[in-house]
Amino acid sequence: MLGFALEAQDGAARAGRLETAHGPVTTPAFMPVGTAGTVKAMTPAALHDCGAQMLLANTYHLMLRPGAERVARLGGLHRFMAWQGPILTDSGGFQVMSLAALRQIDETGVAFRSHLDGSAQRLTPESSIEIQHLLDADISIVLDECIAFPASQAAAAEAMRRSQRWAERSSTAFRRRPGYGLFGIVQGGVFADLRRQSAQHLVAVGFDGYAVGGLAVGEGQAAMLAVLDATLPELPRARPRYLMGVGRPDDLVGAVGRGIDLFDCVLPTRSGRTGQAFTPEGPLNLRNARYADDPGPLDPDCRCPACRSHSRAYLHHLVKANEILGAILLTWHNLLYYQYLMRAMRAAILAGRMADFAQAFAARWRSAQLAK
Amino acid sequence: MLGFALEAQDGAARAGRLETAHGPVTTPAFMPVGTAGTVKAMTPAALHDCGAQMLLANTYHLMLRPGAERVARLGGLHRFMAWQGPILTDSGGFQVMSLAALRQIDETGVAFRSHLDGSAQRLTPESSIEIQHLLDADISIVLDECIAFPASQAAAAEAMRRSQRWAERSSTAFRRRPGYGLFGIVQGGVFADLRRQSAQHLVAVGFDGYAVGGLAVGEGQAAMLAVLDATLPELPRARPRYLMGVGRPDDLVGAVGRGIDLFDCVLPTRSGRTGQAFTPEGPLNLRNARYADDPGPLDPDCRCPACRSHSRAYLHHLVKANEILGAILLTWHNLLYYQYLMRAMRAAILAGRMADFAQAFAARWRSAQLAK
Repeated sequence: MLGFALEAQDGAARAGRLETAHGPVTTPAFMPVGTAGTVKAMTPAALHDCGAQMLLANTYHLMLRPGAERVARLGGLHRFMAWQGPILTDSGGFQVMSLAALRQIDETGVAFRSHLDGSAQRLTPESSIEIQHLLDADISIVLDECIAFPASQAAAAEAMRRSQRWAERSSTAFRRRPGYGLFGIVQGGVFADLRRQSAQHLVAVGFDGYAVGGLAVGEGQAAMLAVLDATLPELPRARPRYLMGVGRPDDLVGAVGRGIDLFDCVLPTRSGRTGQAFTPEGPLNLRNARYADDPGPLDPDCRCPACRSHSRAYLHHLVKANEILGAILLTWHNLLYYQYLMRAMRAAILAGRMADFAQAFAARWRSAQLAK
Repeated sequence: MLGFALEAQDGAARAGRLETAHGPVTTPAFMPVGTAGTVKAMTPAALHDCGAQMLLANTYHLMLRPGAERVARLGGLHRFMAWQGPILTDSGGFQVMSLAALRQIDETGVAFRSHLDGSAQRLTPESSIEIQHLLDADISIVLDECIAFPASQAAAAEAMRRSQRWAERSSTAFRRRPGYGLFGIVQGGVFADLRRQSAQHLVAVGFDGYAVGGLAVGEGQAAMLAVLDATLPELPRARPRYLMGVGRPDDLVGAVGRGIDLFDCVLPTRSGRTGQAFTPEGPLNLRNARYADDPGPLDPDCRCPACRSHSRAYLHHLVKANEILGAILLTWHNLLYYQYLMRAMRAAILAGRMADFAQAFAARWRSAQLAK
């Protein structure tokens, strides 16, 4: 029930347009992460200024605080956080599985203890869908069983089969409405066979889009891209594909080149709070004393407030002094950089030059790594 | 060398206009505190949006990090922090004196240890002026000896006399230029006689403006206002008066009514980072569970982003979750509230209604305190 039009394909890379209840999203697109109903250190106006189109919010965090029923009473997540554009929510599965000793999985779902107050909580495929419905997410995600990396093929297969059954239950529980969609999650660890089986099963059930999960957990970029090579040909061309929790700028370029349409990652926002800035010349660590007297901007071609108004020396000072303004300015810059990158890839795809773009990007990225 | 024109007087209250090297300031005015070269959680654009005209920055913090010479090399403090308007710097005295065990005073100045790295530092009347010159402060302040509260009359008198000698040395060291000014500081604790002597001495030396220091340190509002009653008649009508480090909204109303023109205080910014919001109905503590389901704005008549876009329920959530956006929104709101208050007082003075304004304000403030 989610509109998606492919506007261009260039090799495996795609440019498209997603239509949601809260407006369109041109793809490939990167979603800033608004874990607890706020993209850390950013006002909605600043997010808009960065060119962000769609945000991700975390079901796990929001169900515990402030609570999905409360958000629903207050008019839904868009109104609560004053974000008028589309929102994708995850299922809560990834965070719950990360609780390790604090959770127990069985066929019905996951029992866990809140990291906030230790209270006993439960998440099932059905309750996750209900919570995402209460939040009014434009795109909901099925609950899946995420496994730790590394995992044996047997363990990966078992979790994948449970995820299949949960995906079916999620699909049954989801209330279909125009502009709202449900994505399945391809699982299977680093095993190409399992990934293919998982994709085929999800396609048979039928979803509005397909997420690729369980990556960027330590397997490395080459293994991650190999999984995409195995998986994406199994997915329907006419539906959006979302690579969950990825990643570094070079990851995004590699994944777009293989046919991914949507991304989310905490990297630009978290890095912004720890003094790392992404630039066309590679990442810079503003804590480094070499910037203490540097009067130049982070990136002379960037139009964010950090680059327009401030020197590297000032940003260094803010980071060293743990000033909130440092987090604000570097987060803003990083999110704008990610949006620039996505728009540049989209333009390259529309112009049939994605391979050239990827090659030029990789050369610059490599030389930036070597220069450090 | 600082222009100051009195536009209206209403009882003892004054409306004026200060002319500095970085532009005019209409008075009475409140200066947000930019301790380390940033008003915590605010971009320069947000400060401008709040209507802030002049900022205060702290010599003590900036001399230690990033260092006054560095700021000078980078083009001065205005350029460093991208604030185009006027900046007032304190002398560093208040912070140094607060170091207690870490500092030693003699007639030449103060030796102290940096709170950042324990390094040995010195501040003298002459070096404080030189640092403020390097920072390019529009208004500099003399170094004085601040005493702890409570202090005996003998101790207060002794510190006041040393402050007098230091004020003379500061005045000698200060380089006079158009648009730049030096303020003396009236000291003398809560003792009216000492305050009068201090004021008379400073006036005899001759300064561009007169600060009243050593208040809001625990003496209470009535004692503070009594000091103003004793001090202000001694100061020249044609020069601006600045009440340092004050205060609560009701303090500002009381002090403006007695003839103070300038204020600074960390209260609106610090409160914004701890969940307290100032409103016409009194201060609200957003941590309070009563706001968890409150769909209304903080203040329906306020045009800040917190009030325009968000509910009290959302602000409560942000504060409870320690989200940076909570600090951003509440700081913004509080600074705008302080600027509203100053503008409302200025309008009342210009209209000859300051006494009515103060009475109505006090009644509302008292009923808000009682309602809590």
